[in-house]
Amino acid sequence: MESLDVVTLGETMVLFGSSDHASLEYANTMQKQIGGAESNVAIGLARLGHSSGWISKLGDDPFGKYVHKFIRGEGVDTRGVTYTKQAPTGIFFKEKLSADHVNVYYYRHQSAASLMEPVDLPDSYISSAKILHITGITPALSESCQDAIFHAIHLAKEAGRTVVFDPNIRYKLWGNKEEAKQVLNQIAELADIILPGVDEAAFLTGETDYEKAAEALKTHKGQTVVVKLGEEGAYYTSAESSGIVPGIPVKNVVDPVGAGDGFAAGVISGVLDEVSLEEAVERGNAVGAFVVQMNGDVEGVPTRVQLQSFIDSGERLSDVER
Amino acid sequence: MESLDVVTLGETMVLFGSSDHASLEYANTMQKQIGGAESNVAIGLARLGHSSGWISKLGDDPFGKYVHKFIRGEGVDTRGVTYTKQAPTGIFFKEKLSADHVNVYYYRHQSAASLMEPVDLPDSYISSAKILHITGITPALSESCQDAIFHAIHLAKEAGRTVVFDPNIRYKLWGNKEEAKQVLNQIAELADIILPGVDEAAFLTGETDYEKAAEALKTHKGQTVVVKLGEEGAYYTSAESSGIVPGIPVKNVVDPVGAGDGFAAGVISGVLDEVSLEEAVERGNAVGAFVVQMNGDVEGVPTRVQLQSFIDSGERLSDVER
Amino acid sequence: MESLDVVTLGETMVLFGSSDHASLEYANTMQKQIGGAESNVAIGLARLGHSSGWISKLGDDPFGKYVHKFIRGEGVDTRGVTYTKQAPTGIFFKEKLSADHVNVYYYRHQSAASLMEPVDLPDSYISSAKILHITGITPALSESCQDAIFHAIHLAKEAGRTVVFDPNIRYKLWGNKEEAKQVLNQIAELADIILPGVDEAAFLTGETDYEKAAEALKTHKGQTVVVKLGEEGAYYTSAESSGIVPGIPVKNVVDPVGAGDGFAAGVISGVLDEVSLEEAVERGNAVGAFVVQMNGDVEGVPTRVQLQSFIDSGERLSDVER
Amino acid sequence: MESLDVVTLGETMVLFGSSDHASLEYANTMQKQIGGAESNVAIGLARLGHSSGWISKLGDDPFGKYVHKFIRGEGVDTRGVTYTKQAPTGIFFKEKLSADHVNVYYYRHQSAASLMEPVDLPDSYISSAKILHITGITPALSESCQDAIFHAIHLAKEAGRTVVFDPNIRYKLWGNKEEAKQVLNQIAELADIILPGVDEAAFLTGETDYEKAAEALKTHKGQTVVVKLGEEGAYYTSAESSGIVPGIPVKNVVDPVGAGDGFAAGVISGVLDEVSLEEAVERGNAVGAFVVQMNGDVEGVPTRVQLQSFIDSGERLSDVER
Amino acid sequence: MESLDVVTLGETMVLFGSSDHASLEYANTMQKQIGGAESNVAIGLARLGHSSGWISKLGDDPFGKYVHKFIRGEGVDTRGVTYTKQAPTGIFFKEKLSADHVNVYYYRHQSAASLMEPVDLPDSYISSAKILHITGITPALSESCQDAIFHAIHLAKEAGRTVVFDPNIRYKLWGNKEEAKQVLNQIAELADIILPGVDEAAFLTGETDYEKAAEALKTHKGQTVVVKLGEEGAYYTSAESSGIVPGIPVKNVVDPVGAGDGFAAGVISGVLDEVSLEEAVERGNAVGAFVVQMNGDVEGVPTRVQLQSFIDSGERLSDVER
Amino acid sequence: MESLDVVTLGETMVLFGSSDHASLEYANTMQKQIGGAESNVAIGLARLGHSSGWISKLGDDPFGKYVHKFIRGEGVDTRGVTYTKQAPTGIFFKEKLSADHVNVYYYRHQSAASLMEPVDLPDSYISSAKILHITGITPALSESCQDAIFHAIHLAKEAGRTVVFDPNIRYKLWGNKEEAKQVLNQIAELADIILPGVDEAAFLTGETDYEKAAEALKTHKGQTVVVKLGEEGAYYTSAESSGIVPGIPVKNVVDPVGAGDGFAAGVISGVLDEVSLEEAVERGNAVGAFVVQMNGDVEGVPTRVQLQSFIDSGERLSDVER
Repeated sequence: MESLDVVTLGETMVLFGSSDHASLEYANTMQKQIGGAESNVAIGLARLGHSSGWISKLGDDPFGKYVHKFIRGEGVDTRGVTYTKQAPTGIFFKEKLSADHVNVYYYRHQSAASLMEPVDLPDSYISSAKILHITGITPALSESCQDAIFHAIHLAKEAGRTVVFDPNIRYKLWGNKEEAKQVLNQIAELADIILPGVDEAAFLTGETDYEKAAEALKTHKGQTVVVKLGEEGAYYTSAESSGIVPGIPVKNVVDPVGAGDGFAAGVISGVLDEVSLEEAVERGNAVGAFVVQMNGDVEGVPTRVQLQSFIDSGERLSDVER
Repeated sequence: MESLDVVTLGETMVLFGSSDHASLEYANTMQKQIGGAESNVAIGLARLGHSSGWISKLGDDPFGKYVHKFIRGEGVDTRGVTYTKQAPTGIFFKEKLSADHVNVYYYRHQSAASLMEPVDLPDSYISSAKILHITGITPALSESCQDAIFHAIHLAKEAGRTVVFDPNIRYKLWGNKEEAKQVLNQIAELADIILPGVDEAAFLTGETDYEKAAEALKTHKGQTVVVKLGEEGAYYTSAESSGIVPGIPVKNVVDPVGAGDGFAAGVISGVLDEVSLEEAVERGNAVGAFVVQMNGDVEGVPTRVQLQSFIDSGERLSDVER
Repeated sequence: MESLDVVTLGETMVLFGSSDHASLEYANTMQKQIGGAESNVAIGLARLGHSSGWISKLGDDPFGKYVHKFIRGEGVDTRGVTYTKQAPTGIFFKEKLSADHVNVYYYRHQSAASLMEPVDLPDSYISSAKILHITGITPALSESCQDAIFHAIHLAKEAGRTVVFDPNIRYKLWGNKEEAKQVLNQIAELADIILPGVDEAAFLTGETDYEKAAEALKTHKGQTVVVKLGEEGAYYTSAESSGIVPGIPVKNVVDPVGAGDGFAAGVISGVLDEVSLEEAVERGNAVGAFVVQMNGDVEGVPTRVQLQSFIDSGERLSDVER
Repeated sequence: MESLDVVTLGETMVLFGSSDHASLEYANTMQKQIGGAESNVAIGLARLGHSSGWISKLGDDPFGKYVHKFIRGEGVDTRGVTYTKQAPTGIFFKEKLSADHVNVYYYRHQSAASLMEPVDLPDSYISSAKILHITGITPALSESCQDAIFHAIHLAKEAGRTVVFDPNIRYKLWGNKEEAKQVLNQIAELADIILPGVDEAAFLTGETDYEKAAEALKTHKGQTVVVKLGEEGAYYTSAESSGIVPGIPVKNVVDPVGAGDGFAAGVISGVLDEVSLEEAVERGNAVGAFVVQMNGDVEGVPTRVQLQSFIDSGERLSDVER
Repeated sequence: MESLDVVTLGETMVLFGSSDHASLEYANTMQKQIGGAESNVAIGLARLGHSSGWISKLGDDPFGKYVHKFIRGEGVDTRGVTYTKQAPTGIFFKEKLSADHVNVYYYRHQSAASLMEPVDLPDSYISSAKILHITGITPALSESCQDAIFHAIHLAKEAGRTVVFDPNIRYKLWGNKEEAKQVLNQIAELADIILPGVDEAAFLTGETDYEKAAEALKTHKGQTVVVKLGEEGAYYTSAESSGIVPGIPVKNVVDPVGAGDGFAAGVISGVLDEVSLEEAVERGNAVGAFVVQMNGDVEGVPTRVQLQSFIDSGERLSDVER
Repeated sequence: MESLDVVTLGETMVLFGSSDHASLEYANTMQKQIGGAESNVAIGLARLGHSSGWISKLGDDPFGKYVHKFIRGEGVDTRGVTYTKQAPTGIFFKEKLSADHVNVYYYRHQSAASLMEPVDLPDSYISSAKILHITGITPALSESCQDAIFHAIHLAKEAGRTVVFDPNIRYKLWGNKEEAKQVLNQIAELADIILPGVDEAAFLTGETDYEKAAEALKTHKGQTVVVKLGEEGAYYTSAESSGIVPGIPVKNVVDPVGAGDGFAAGVISGVLDEVSLEEAVERGNAVGAFVVQMNGDVEGVPTRVQLQSFIDSGERLSDVER
């Protein structure tokens, strides 16, 4: 197998949203899409011109095939995908009652992805990739998923690769907040680059000040922490430098979902291109700004050309696209 | 509480079907409906003018409310419905690849209904109803559901009520065929009226001849067995009489699903009206014939007036409806 | 029959709205819903945990059955519903050209509901309910409907029940404004609680000052008047107390229709719970604020738990629902 | 005004059909179309290359404008259309439960078209057209419509024009069958060409034999009667000739509605072209055969070129169209 | 042929827009409409009560018939339309990624309309109309279209008619900006009334000051120039008068497309009614303000009664329409 | 680059079909899909477990990206795809008036794919693949496409690869039948395996007897010809063997489109697996039988497991799928 720039692993589900009523109780018609943080990052990286791979376990059913084909269609390598007849592909429903009142209903308990275990992982596929990207969602899915995450980290570290960790804390999936905190901190210790939101950093460290929280997350030299501050941008700190990259103001936030994944894709893209940490964070901000301007988690991710033009000029490439 | 003619208990799920592609893999849009054998019977009986009640446990979510309101809207008493925050309302997807190639994908494992247990049952509600209707689906959902079924039977028998049992065997839900056979036979022994399909009668008794199978199912005096023979009609046998009621030829079978539930509703209606067993079976055939002529499990169930006119004249009441 | 907390009577129609073009002239596809002030109140009360009944006459057609089942599904008692073959269920079309330019096209002239007459009313059903709710729409439908309203009021007053009157003036339905004024004032005199909008109070009394108008509406002791002041809230006055309850600011008014019905449901709920008049009006404001935040007349009506939490904290129960 | 080949008058309504459920009770979505016998004939004639005009009264509402624009778009002259604010445009709903079980629900009582009266008719517009086409639907709508029909006939006969009468008996619209019979026979006496179905001929004359019935309808010399015999074709009789034109076998009857109107358009087209009566009836059969092969009342009406090719070769012009 | 108030000629295409996703890449469903500047003007004029005709060449295909019937349905004379089997009707797709990011994808290269040539034009039809309206789009379609435009202008001028020219510059259609400038200036010289946008005036004349640009466009006496200034209104200048008519503030701009065509229709309507130039421009502003308040290019064009009421009172005629 | 089992090249277009009316003239809504013979074969081979690649040129527009992602999602290698800004991705519309009356409207003239030329082809990608698959559609698109086809054949032959040729004659695309015949025969001479339909074989050779036609197509030793005989199956002939493989009877032909492409995929799959020619043709028949049982060109293509089970047992694998 050719080696890839980035490999990620996690669950992607089929997402159903209503097209006629806000409330799922009264809605008659639902539209099929996909939803998954790690595949968002992989798709974002592919669109930015990097080679990315997504590892997961899917149900041997039409929804599993749909998820697989959608992600492969986006140019992501899916040789690390396995199928199981033991469990169905996870699905969820999204109910947008108003701009700031969104409910989500999961049917992912004991889903195919939750059966993922270390033995499912393609070892050399992971160890040969430059970067391993993981999120805090996967270890919350099941014990075997937790084992798989630690196994993947182990493979990457053994091979001297960079591990990027986005905590993405989903309290609902973790039975117990203490367990969440303990496991995620354990992963953070092993990661090279940590990308928490400001609330997540506080939860993991107990420090509400983001600078202090970032310091607390750096448990050993060589670690980089980037704390996402919402509209205010992001704070980064590493052995070499630290500072704030201000957020890019967006006139019309159409759909905030996927912004964090776009941010991760942008930062990782910068790391792969070996730009400075500050520039990588700028790139993260820029991709996030693109994503929130369109519906869908991945529809707004820019191509490399669009991104560069946006960073340079602050404007979308309308001349090119029209 | 007022006492009802019939009480039934079981799981009703939200059913999603595709409206644009046959294959769920390529379908973009899904339509929401409901699906559940026991609620079909309860709705059928309500439309035929009897008072019926449906007992179940639903998730405290929009889908639970939708199922509840749909069934209540049809005139079925739902005071026996409880909600749980522990599990979601079950859902399933239906994929109709061709007329005789339909796949079903369930998301009902550990659903709200599977958490039903004896303590959820409203004792006097059940014991005061003239008839208790149960199917072989419910005991296959979980151990607690199995306990609930036996508890319900116990309540009914204690109060001297009639127990109607439709085996409705779903091998997929039963881990083990032997267990299915044993449990369902145990229920059959306790039932007063048993409504197996011809294959089900053979599975339960080992007798492929339906007359012999029917005899074998009658484990004590006073039991009635009606074996559904598909297009050929139904064979009935009781202490008093036995015979065949020929099927009603239907030109256009639009949707065969729900025919068995319509049959059960018709037979029970006859029992409530104290007509002869033969006439009750005729009524079952007639309701089944109505149901298969329209899409949807319950859309085709006739009203009492429509049914009577159909039995009398063999024609649908088009003069009245046009 | 068990007696109910509240009984109301009126017309509910099938409502068709366009889903693809603003203008009905160019629209190709229409969505079916229901619309009716009195059933909105009945549904709102059911959701708030009270027992409510809705009386009406429907056409013996699919639309009549749809209206009936929708309202019954919502948990409203519909034993007082009758059907007629003499006239169809009323329907109307809604055309939303822009946020503040909505046209409505009625096909309700000589509808089934307009044939309602005193003899259709279930006397003891009305006289045994704690509260009778009526609106000014029903007497505008036909003379026999007007007779039915006065008959219902008579039944309630004879039995010592509380009559709540929401003028809901529809000039289009009244041929003649003078007649409207005279009939509605006659009803107001008989009512115990009157819930006019500020313009309606002015129309009925000729007083543009809402305090004066409220006084003018109180034609005998023991009457309560609550004047709805839009965003400013509501002014209430009774023999015991009077004052203003300020409106609850709503960031995003998604659909203002149904706010008045929600207000009525909230006030009646408070009366049933025997809270102070001020608190009842607060409850009315709160329900109205919920309703305008979602599309649909009844989709936004809160449950009791949601309402209490909102009144206590000023926030929607997102933690519970997410 | 230029004079036209044919003028017709009658009601065209907006037709709503369900696109997701057979039953209107459970259908969520409806599609807008138009439906009207006389406009079908006018459109058919326009497509066959004749100049045709349609006279009607529409509501001054979006549905009236839609009907007007649809018919004008098809190339029919609509200068004879008037609008009223007194009544809405008629609408109806179509429920296709199965191939042979279709229900129709009208909202046309006191519709705009029913207000049509003699004074609305553009006198010279009618008297200058070569042919006046009328149906038995219009006189059933209201007394003023009946007056309008007799006025139109009077204008045409005064000017020496040909009157074509299609009885199109709708018992539901006629309160009283006797009245229907009497009025329609009165019109038949005044008509030059009468186009009844076989059942209609029997109803009007009391003769079940179609030849005898046709003779009975010919109350004076110079009248032509064509009796439609369904799949068997049509029987024609005039002073000069009589005979049967056999029906054209159609493999797939997709939608039988509109066949009679297509037949009328074909016969009238032949009369305008002064072909023999037999050939005119052949043309009627051919147009009817086209219409039933496509959904919609008018979608299948052929152009002149398509029709000629079909009559010549018995085949649709697929080479041309593909 | 009767002579018309206005005749225009140009291409109208079928327009497809997505109804489920913003991005055409991910959209599954598209809605059919029409789009064309010249037909917008013709429809606008018809709605304002003038007689207008639209000349074009369409493909002999379903889309050509659709375009024809839509425009004829709106009351526009279409006797000048021809069909060709040589090329298809043009179509285009519209992608609205966000409020200010709209992409358009044309399939109009070598479309039927681009084959229009002088010989297709109905000479007396054009020369007998009071006004000839042309846009700068048509000469950009092909050389034969350019010839047709000059031929049409020639016919009108010969007959002493008024030529109204809206530059409507589409750089994408012109291979070469210099050619665009040269051809459009040549047309402007022949026109009596020129209606450029402020940017167009600058492009054509090289003058960024709109007053100077307007002067530069007036190459001979008797010419009128009206420069559209967006929200600020319009500047007009003729031999008799000049000045600014301020724009009409619109709260909710729903869809800005079609505003320029509405403006042209309003100005031409004023010219036909022989009001002052200032009043004609006011009318243009008013029609434009209507159009942008509704989706669709022509849906918002007012009727004469609505327009007059709006000009008089500044308010839409809601009382009349509700 | 890894070498593939099969490489094909050709145009795939976006296909729009109506979802509400048969006729495109009256249809309001269109559904987006893809259509292309060569990509059908590539997808079919991927589903059968072979590695396949598809070479084409797409427009740099949303439709190009959609086509690319759909095909890549299906597991086909798309490294040979190029984009151009010079021309749009081809599209077409499908109108299904009745079962046997389908019209197609192309917007592919001068599409992106028609700009394909030899220099666009990835030489080693083609020469390293075991099989090159081509159809007679591509050389009909443009001269440069014809050059590309001959260049591809040259590359394959140079490298000693097998060339499979499916004539797929589209007379509409070929200006001139003689040219078609000459070019296609020239390609046939270079091909190793030729897969004509019976009519195509006759057209190319002038022999109406399929055995003679097949012989005539074999211009040199080592060539294999398989003539598709519709329901009767296929006739094969090579240096080693010849015979007929009877067709597989299919009860419900849902959609015949794509059957020929499925046949080609099956035969090529057999060749890759080095089964006998007879078995390869059997496989072709089997895949074709699957395809026609589902809507869509590729939805019905079986997986290897499904295919084997079908060949072995004659039944679809319902046990596995249910």
